[in-house]
Amino acid sequence: MINVGIVGATGYAGEELIEILLKHPNVRITNISAKIDAPKAISDIFPKFKGKINLICKEPDVKEIAANCDLVFLALPHTVSMEIAPKLLKAGKQVIDLSADYRLNNVKIYEKFYHAKHKDELHLAGAVYGLPELYRAKIKTAKLIANPGCYPTVSILALAPLVAVNKIDLESIIIDAKSGVTGAGRKIAESFLFSEVNEDFKAYKVNIHQHSPEINQELTKLAGKKINITFVPHLLPLSRGILTTIYVKKSHKVAKSQGHKVIELYKKFYKKEPFVRIKPEGDFPRIKDVVMSNFCDIGIKDDNDKIIIVAAIDNLLKGAAGQAVQNMNIMLGLPENTAL
Amino acid sequence: MINVGIVGATGYAGEELIEILLKHPNVRITNISAKIDAPKAISDIFPKFKGKINLICKEPDVKEIAANCDLVFLALPHTVSMEIAPKLLKAGKQVIDLSADYRLNNVKIYEKFYHAKHKDELHLAGAVYGLPELYRAKIKTAKLIANPGCYPTVSILALAPLVAVNKIDLESIIIDAKSGVTGAGRKIAESFLFSEVNEDFKAYKVNIHQHSPEINQELTKLAGKKINITFVPHLLPLSRGILTTIYVKKSHKVAKSQGHKVIELYKKFYKKEPFVRIKPEGDFPRIKDVVMSNFCDIGIKDDNDKIIIVAAIDNLLKGAAGQAVQNMNIMLGLPENTAL
Amino acid sequence: MINVGIVGATGYAGEELIEILLKHPNVRITNISAKIDAPKAISDIFPKFKGKINLICKEPDVKEIAANCDLVFLALPHTVSMEIAPKLLKAGKQVIDLSADYRLNNVKIYEKFYHAKHKDELHLAGAVYGLPELYRAKIKTAKLIANPGCYPTVSILALAPLVAVNKIDLESIIIDAKSGVTGAGRKIAESFLFSEVNEDFKAYKVNIHQHSPEINQELTKLAGKKINITFVPHLLPLSRGILTTIYVKKSHKVAKSQGHKVIELYKKFYKKEPFVRIKPEGDFPRIKDVVMSNFCDIGIKDDNDKIIIVAAIDNLLKGAAGQAVQNMNIMLGLPENTAL
Amino acid sequence: MINVGIVGATGYAGEELIEILLKHPNVRITNISAKIDAPKAISDIFPKFKGKINLICKEPDVKEIAANCDLVFLALPHTVSMEIAPKLLKAGKQVIDLSADYRLNNVKIYEKFYHAKHKDELHLAGAVYGLPELYRAKIKTAKLIANPGCYPTVSILALAPLVAVNKIDLESIIIDAKSGVTGAGRKIAESFLFSEVNEDFKAYKVNIHQHSPEINQELTKLAGKKINITFVPHLLPLSRGILTTIYVKKSHKVAKSQGHKVIELYKKFYKKEPFVRIKPEGDFPRIKDVVMSNFCDIGIKDDNDKIIIVAAIDNLLKGAAGQAVQNMNIMLGLPENTAL
Repeated sequence: MINVGIVGATGYAGEELIEILLKHPNVRITNISAKIDAPKAISDIFPKFKGKINLICKEPDVKEIAANCDLVFLALPHTVSMEIAPKLLKAGKQVIDLSADYRLNNVKIYEKFYHAKHKDELHLAGAVYGLPELYRAKIKTAKLIANPGCYPTVSILALAPLVAVNKIDLESIIIDAKSGVTGAGRKIAESFLFSEVNEDFKAYKVNIHQHSPEINQELTKLAGKKINITFVPHLLPLSRGILTTIYVKKSHKVAKSQGHKVIELYKKFYKKEPFVRIKPEGDFPRIKDVVMSNFCDIGIKDDNDKIIIVAAIDNLLKGAAGQAVQNMNIMLGLPENTAL
Repeated sequence: MINVGIVGATGYAGEELIEILLKHPNVRITNISAKIDAPKAISDIFPKFKGKINLICKEPDVKEIAANCDLVFLALPHTVSMEIAPKLLKAGKQVIDLSADYRLNNVKIYEKFYHAKHKDELHLAGAVYGLPELYRAKIKTAKLIANPGCYPTVSILALAPLVAVNKIDLESIIIDAKSGVTGAGRKIAESFLFSEVNEDFKAYKVNIHQHSPEINQELTKLAGKKINITFVPHLLPLSRGILTTIYVKKSHKVAKSQGHKVIELYKKFYKKEPFVRIKPEGDFPRIKDVVMSNFCDIGIKDDNDKIIIVAAIDNLLKGAAGQAVQNMNIMLGLPENTAL
Repeated sequence: MINVGIVGATGYAGEELIEILLKHPNVRITNISAKIDAPKAISDIFPKFKGKINLICKEPDVKEIAANCDLVFLALPHTVSMEIAPKLLKAGKQVIDLSADYRLNNVKIYEKFYHAKHKDELHLAGAVYGLPELYRAKIKTAKLIANPGCYPTVSILALAPLVAVNKIDLESIIIDAKSGVTGAGRKIAESFLFSEVNEDFKAYKVNIHQHSPEINQELTKLAGKKINITFVPHLLPLSRGILTTIYVKKSHKVAKSQGHKVIELYKKFYKKEPFVRIKPEGDFPRIKDVVMSNFCDIGIKDDNDKIIIVAAIDNLLKGAAGQAVQNMNIMLGLPENTAL
Repeated sequence: MINVGIVGATGYAGEELIEILLKHPNVRITNISAKIDAPKAISDIFPKFKGKINLICKEPDVKEIAANCDLVFLALPHTVSMEIAPKLLKAGKQVIDLSADYRLNNVKIYEKFYHAKHKDELHLAGAVYGLPELYRAKIKTAKLIANPGCYPTVSILALAPLVAVNKIDLESIIIDAKSGVTGAGRKIAESFLFSEVNEDFKAYKVNIHQHSPEINQELTKLAGKKINITFVPHLLPLSRGILTTIYVKKSHKVAKSQGHKVIELYKKFYKKEPFVRIKPEGDFPRIKDVVMSNFCDIGIKDDNDKIIIVAAIDNLLKGAAGQAVQNMNIMLGLPENTAL
């Protein structure tokens, strides 16, 4: 039995982590903490957990966490993670960080997009980007996982097979992304009030979103050439789920229409992946297919000189807590889909 | 042309007032104010008004308002209205207050339910409760209107015919009320976040809501006997509209089932009312029938020893801004449904 | 390993049964059928099951079902169940029927409320009403379970402790119930279109709903006296969940306010129940607390001469498929909460 | 006073036409018809119109319509309009057709995308495409208006200024469109049930939607060169509103970034338009800004070698009934925004 802790348990990702880990046969939640006025039973914060877990949620106390836990999930806002992670790593704990603090290799880009100084370059170098479909081998032995962002997870998975084989115009990638409201976390702001979001839909951070550099970084590595996507996120009036519609131009050298070939490329690329499903031709995923699951579903239309890719995930599972547990399972040598 | 001002223009009721008054042929909005960090065009706050109105919204300046306006709507939080109303009344302005500050005749009850001292007992005595169906004559000459609350409007209209004829057990009244989220105003709190309200439904302030004494006050006046309702409000995952389901027991002296008689009683009571519609037998209102209108729709089931009444309004119109304009129309001697 | 079949797998309850049973360690789904134009992989009907189950859904073939299965769930419309159940029972199978066909002991009442002749009075007599909190002992040895309706489940659980001790005015019970849209099944009708339900709320079948006699039957048994509730259901603009607000008058002999006593009565009554949770004083359930779970949460307000009870369940789980699996677990001698 | 008829009054567009025309000071609705089982008061079909209009809705009777009306709106499904329009035109009536029947100049394209033979090529030639921003002069004297589709309205308005000046790569246009559910009309199908659409989001008819040729036709005329857009529509879980996000590459000859110049181009192009609003730099429209209005709001980002355009309309108003009334106002020589 592995003892795990959750720091930042009162956010949406933290809540999902509790939900999943309570069903996990090989781990036991032994510490729950968050920024909180006074200690409070987690089942009073989330009445749905009443009768399922008895822990008290309090302010994170690194010593106590280190004493109680083998592995710790940090479901914290950006900049807070890198204050706690180093201490836990020093204490020999495995850390899975769901924030952006260890995702970007280039500190300058981090500082530009997150408007904050990076405080832990030391561990940044050794952090493993926790996208199992690309980095499974490294995840197995990682001490610190940078769990990918929700938009990057679905975008990178949707583009990886094409980018890797280098058959598209790398300057042409357009990602039109739509996310449910939990994507923003439990943020108390006017723009997330029910009466503002309900019956509304809008684009935001038009081509300036902080997930752009994360997507660019990973696609660039895959392609071996600098990639600079166009990325426009939108806010959907629903609670959970992301769907992205991606447009790419084929390279000039590639034949116009290739029938099933592109879909076959995807199927081959993800052949052994337990959480990526490729749709048959003419079929595209909807958010309902993946919500409450750790799947990423991908549909592809090969359309003359263009390829259109539609991909969907649950932003709180494959886009956050689910993927974090997938990473944990890999780190612990457990079947990758345990509890997922 | 009458010049009107709106204080508290950035809330939901204020926004609706602008919407309605822009279509009103006999008035001109000349002053818009609200609690605001810095002056801002109202069409920047609400982009939907771009091209329709050019006023700047700033902190309320009573002198300026008095200089610019003949009549002023106060769409303010409770306790704030009674600081501004006296000054405007002193300056000879007509005031329609959408807050609760002048609704309760008994200051002690006000202080108990609104947790604040009443600061303007002087004008409280002369304030007219702005429910046209009961107080039209008084509204005509009123200087200060206490515009009714949303729950009280629909509840009193749904019960008035029965309470007035004294055919029911006055101790038996149960009001099970369900309101959309704008009923709470543009309040920035976790419990009104999209991800909290969406796909949820709950009771709140179970039989302790501050609108109970307002309903009791008005029904007691009508009945000539003390009434003490049971009132449980609920929060609906939708933006606007209230539907109440009301249960009353008949008095012992009344025959068990009276067929159409109860519906006829209602039709007669509201015969000349432009904004109350009575449903035929077996038919009940839904929120969709009244949203974006100033109507109150009422359906009645005469069921042996019980009567079940279902009534619906748009909480922002008949329950707030629409009724406020209806009151203004009466005060100004205009056709009551102008702009409504 | 027990082999189970699901007849009516394409409805909402059938879909949930698949979802739950796929996680169940002691059973294997071996047959899936439904009214369907042509055989189709269940994972093509519900793409979310892709990669999790490989069965083909076809028209129900009783012989095949009997050959493949030890226990069969019937998630069928009313009147269809009683055509299939007798054949499966004859073949020695255990049957859990989620329709209303075996719930009402009195055939005349069934025929009045379901507008159809009862075709299987033979088995009706031996059917066990599958509410574990009241009938656990009988369920253990049952051959045919009449799985309770969604409204009855939450209403009976919310009232049972009070009705059993006979401290309330049995004529006074008012159940104001609100249900999400899946409560109506996957019915293709204008009134269930998104644009009709969204941003709307309404009462329906006002005090004439077919679940009334089911509630009356069970409460009458508990009280030992004839009970005739007032029951008004409403349609919520959300997918899943039921919340009921129940009003009862205390008997004259009972003291006005009893402080914690009523809550204690509930806690005692449900002491050993794994799926009933009683809220502390002043606290009431919301739909979010129980959605995606098999719990029934109950909050109680003891208010002078009245008691107000608020109770919530997930209509597809404790109100249908979850309770069906709970019943199966009891029948099979498994831990009651397995897979729930 | 002009007498108008509405054929197809029971659909969403028909309902909106009634709503708008009841507020119109210069017209009177004299005939209401639709495919209907038996004649029924329109206020029984739409209870919200109770007390506002007394007409009976019956099956369309062309003779009666011609006798009662000066101008007729056809809010009919595709292929039905072209059976009725010729008769009304022959009787000398002005016709505004909200279906697709007279929008496409090329009959072969119509037949390919609408899977039906065109039956009225005679009048097709003289029909005027009712987009006032491009065809106001022709609309003034038109006998038959082909009211544009919802997606084409917002897409053409969003692209017209750029396409007209020929500064973009015409092969690069990508339109990622998102529409509320009323866009599909009051269609009774499983895919439009509340429980299917709610909390879901999906792409549909990926680059094969029947509005593509309509957009291509109009943009091609404007550019003077063949245009073939990429068009992917999506279904939003909300009732009304369309938002499109459009991506275009600049022509090689055009300087990379031009600062305000693109926005200025748009402002100039739409300078005198009463219903097109251009957002300031860095600001983008949301559906809430335009719902319940006839406005089309457009935001533009000039981004190196790309331009991103976000545009929004209410699909039932500027995308259907509102634009139809705008066209009527132009045809009748009334102020264009009367009743809008």
